[in-house]
Amino acid sequence: MAQYLTQYLRRTLQAHPTRVATICGTRQHSYAQYAERVARLGAALRGLGMQPGDRVGMLGLNSDRYMEFFFGTWWGGGSVNSVNIRWSAAEVAYSLDDCDTRILLVDEQFKAMGGELRGLCKALRTLVYCGDGDTPEGMLNYETLMAQAIPGADAMRAGNDLAAVMYTGGTTGFPKGVMLSHDNLAANALALVGQGAVNPSARTLLIAPMFHAAANAFMMGTAAVGGTFVIAPMFTPLGALQTIQQHRATHVLLVPTMIQLTVDHPDAGQYDLSSVQTVVYGGSVISEAVLQHAFKRFSKADFVQAYGMTELSPCATYLGAEEHRTGAARGLLTSAGRATLTTEVRIVDERGSEVPRGTVGEVAVRGANVMLGYWNKPEQTAAAVRDGWMYTGDAGRMDDDGYVYIVDRMKDMIVSGGENVYSAEVENALSKHPAVGASAVIGIPSEQWGETVHAVVTLKPGASATAEELMAHCHTLIAHYKCPRSVEFRPALPMTGAGKIQKAELRKPYWEGRSRAVN
Amino acid sequence: MAQYLTQYLRRTLQAHPTRVATICGTRQHSYAQYAERVARLGAALRGLGMQPGDRVGMLGLNSDRYMEFFFGTWWGGGSVNSVNIRWSAAEVAYSLDDCDTRILLVDEQFKAMGGELRGLCKALRTLVYCGDGDTPEGMLNYETLMAQAIPGADAMRAGNDLAAVMYTGGTTGFPKGVMLSHDNLAANALALVGQGAVNPSARTLLIAPMFHAAANAFMMGTAAVGGTFVIAPMFTPLGALQTIQQHRATHVLLVPTMIQLTVDHPDAGQYDLSSVQTVVYGGSVISEAVLQHAFKRFSKADFVQAYGMTELSPCATYLGAEEHRTGAARGLLTSAGRATLTTEVRIVDERGSEVPRGTVGEVAVRGANVMLGYWNKPEQTAAAVRDGWMYTGDAGRMDDDGYVYIVDRMKDMIVSGGENVYSAEVENALSKHPAVGASAVIGIPSEQWGETVHAVVTLKPGASATAEELMAHCHTLIAHYKCPRSVEFRPALPMTGAGKIQKAELRKPYWEGRSRAVN
Repeated sequence: MAQYLTQYLRRTLQAHPTRVATICGTRQHSYAQYAERVARLGAALRGLGMQPGDRVGMLGLNSDRYMEFFFGTWWGGGSVNSVNIRWSAAEVAYSLDDCDTRILLVDEQFKAMGGELRGLCKALRTLVYCGDGDTPEGMLNYETLMAQAIPGADAMRAGNDLAAVMYTGGTTGFPKGVMLSHDNLAANALALVGQGAVNPSARTLLIAPMFHAAANAFMMGTAAVGGTFVIAPMFTPLGALQTIQQHRATHVLLVPTMIQLTVDHPDAGQYDLSSVQTVVYGGSVISEAVLQHAFKRFSKADFVQAYGMTELSPCATYLGAEEHRTGAARGLLTSAGRATLTTEVRIVDERGSEVPRGTVGEVAVRGANVMLGYWNKPEQTAAAVRDGWMYTGDAGRMDDDGYVYIVDRMKDMIVSGGENVYSAEVENALSKHPAVGASAVIGIPSEQWGETVHAVVTLKPGASATAEELMAHCHTLIAHYKCPRSVEFRPALPMTGAGKIQKAELRKPYWEGRSRAVN
Repeated sequence: MAQYLTQYLRRTLQAHPTRVATICGTRQHSYAQYAERVARLGAALRGLGMQPGDRVGMLGLNSDRYMEFFFGTWWGGGSVNSVNIRWSAAEVAYSLDDCDTRILLVDEQFKAMGGELRGLCKALRTLVYCGDGDTPEGMLNYETLMAQAIPGADAMRAGNDLAAVMYTGGTTGFPKGVMLSHDNLAANALALVGQGAVNPSARTLLIAPMFHAAANAFMMGTAAVGGTFVIAPMFTPLGALQTIQQHRATHVLLVPTMIQLTVDHPDAGQYDLSSVQTVVYGGSVISEAVLQHAFKRFSKADFVQAYGMTELSPCATYLGAEEHRTGAARGLLTSAGRATLTTEVRIVDERGSEVPRGTVGEVAVRGANVMLGYWNKPEQTAAAVRDGWMYTGDAGRMDDDGYVYIVDRMKDMIVSGGENVYSAEVENALSKHPAVGASAVIGIPSEQWGETVHAVVTLKPGASATAEELMAHCHTLIAHYKCPRSVEFRPALPMTGAGKIQKAELRKPYWEGRSRAVN
């Protein structure tokens, strides 16, 4: 038979019923309590009309109830739709209607949007309020539903059965619902476990947003081995520092921006981070400078990186602890790692043929992690997944040892005077300037060169620098044709829900009325 | 998409083309060479008429070519039938015909039987000789086929596609072909990796017979992380000691009998076994005395145990290194461990309901490891796998922490005067007598008690003991009703291909013309 995610829960319940499953604020549940609540929620959702495979949505900050939502929906036979909390009500409504999500859970933070969605959303039948305090009119109360439910049997969905629909690309064009199966998520979780990213004694901090594939993977990996979850509602640098210290978190997932904000926090040195054994990062390119700083702050921790995308459940490659410890001189810290235990990775040209090692091409990934497809979008699925290979849209190269180096999104590559310029390389150079907080390098139209290199930069608090200084700084580090020709300062960069910089937004004003090959 | 076993090979080839894949006698192949040979064999088998899913047999001792057979068959799109080398030609012929195996590879050791099979076997079309020396008349030469083949593309069989047919039960009634899928074998391999049984720097000794599910699992686990295989043709105690020392093997799989023979070997102390990091054992019950002796001999090694059966690909439970290091006082060394990362385990009564912890019942297992079924035996499949649960036929109990203790085969349990006697417990008591080499305890018919406890014993070389001495010894350790009422001495015990004692053979003369509930 195939893999099924509820196996994780029952297996841990059998061996460790008194182990702490979730810690969330002042609430704490043992695995016995957690399993009971999952079985109740599964029954409650069935009572609300959830049929096998039906989507159930969650719109909320991180919480223990978010964990219950995942496993309770699966237990009851449904599929989760973990909604991007950074979206507008209109975007959320689109995604709920797109995959016919009839039941939606909302927490305190999103109860107003929940009410708004009722008017916007055709599919929505039932709103369940899973926050604390009074239940808004027209919504059902989560704890009441749980209390009234009779814990039911596991629906035993498995294998290729739909486990999750996760929406991506909401910021450019219409969002696409990535369909992931039980086998997809389980393969990814086992790869993380097999590569040592988590272990059974993990006290895993969930502070990156749980709706997102990265946190989901970290959660599933920890669930597969039956660890304890320390759950913080949302990322703040101080929240990360405090929660790690208070609950002695051992495993922490942070996207690069979060790592930077955490280790740069003025009080970072006052917190005891010695419990952290492993920092898992990924989601976007990290600069070596940030990484070296993080090594110092998390001085007892191993670092591991996973690279991937939602469509890959989400891991494609993995850079392990050993490589972080010993690979700096070989340049491995700029690598995304090698194919995970359950994937194959190739760098291909436009025709899908593998290019020689060292040559930049598109990263393509095959394996048990590759999504079932995009919800109701067979053409986009066929374009993205060809012969079993998922075309990531990322530009990268591979060295002789199989290490992958992501140089850019295919669409963020700048072609200037016939030369390829990888924005990540320019951003890495900029990050080494002491005044630079974050940067985004984009191609802007040029009569003479086709595109020229343009940098959008935020400065660190209290720091200052001129455009000329930053351009001169880049000239000391990278080739002339890669250096920014113009620099623009902003207080902040536009970010996606996944913590990625929205370069399409930055490019838009420059390209208005013009055509770019990809946008 | 689903899992596929050839992914292991390509993933390692990409990262470690010069790593040693196989060491076999004086031959050694890098992963680049090995992958090339696998692709050639796949093409050669297709050239011989192998269609997708077709079974290809191998009858031979362990060798690097046996490894090539597994991955080459999969690469070419076929399914492996690894033939029990301890069977008679008639038994082999039955199994080849049963699942329509048309191509059979035989090595030097089995070339005579290969010739014999041509007359006995209806399905067999092509015999390939993969030994050294002259190719027997009417057989094709393996190396010639390889040299002539043009390396072909991977057939990319995956998921529920049939990967292997492994025959069990050849000693009692008709053998059954256990059908295992790519997903089955991959789930088991990932569980072994995730639980730390192997790692990427493993130099894995394959000396237990490769046709068997236990060695297969160990091979697949090592293959999943891209380790090196040190392959010895067949188990001998001296061969194990020498090969470990010569090739600095790090991971070793031995069944309990093999462990005992190895550590009891008079020259064992003269060999350097310090390279061994992990001893994996399983396949039958081990006595604590043997285990404690093995701890001393393999003084640098962790011990891990896997319990299962071919139908479970084969692991059901796993007892890890930590439990071996610290669990002796709690009695964990007599446990088979807990559910693996990919399984659930329950102890059930005759109606399939879970029994309370501590109560003996039948061990049932569910999860991604459970076989597709028995080849062409839907009724036996339906009897063995009910609601996704594989009924193992083993009697066991589970403690409050989820540890499983196998007390007997259901059919080896002795019911004497209304009391259950577990043969394993009696054998454990016998094994603590200094003169006892091995023992098998069976129930024999009794007018008064229904069954009485009978022991068949081999003595250690040069040792002596009387039946009365052994019975008196047992009285000091176990309850009166469990002690043997009769003892029989033999020079050796009849063994199956898996190294298990054939108790049915021992029981047979006593039960001739009588009925026993199970046999």
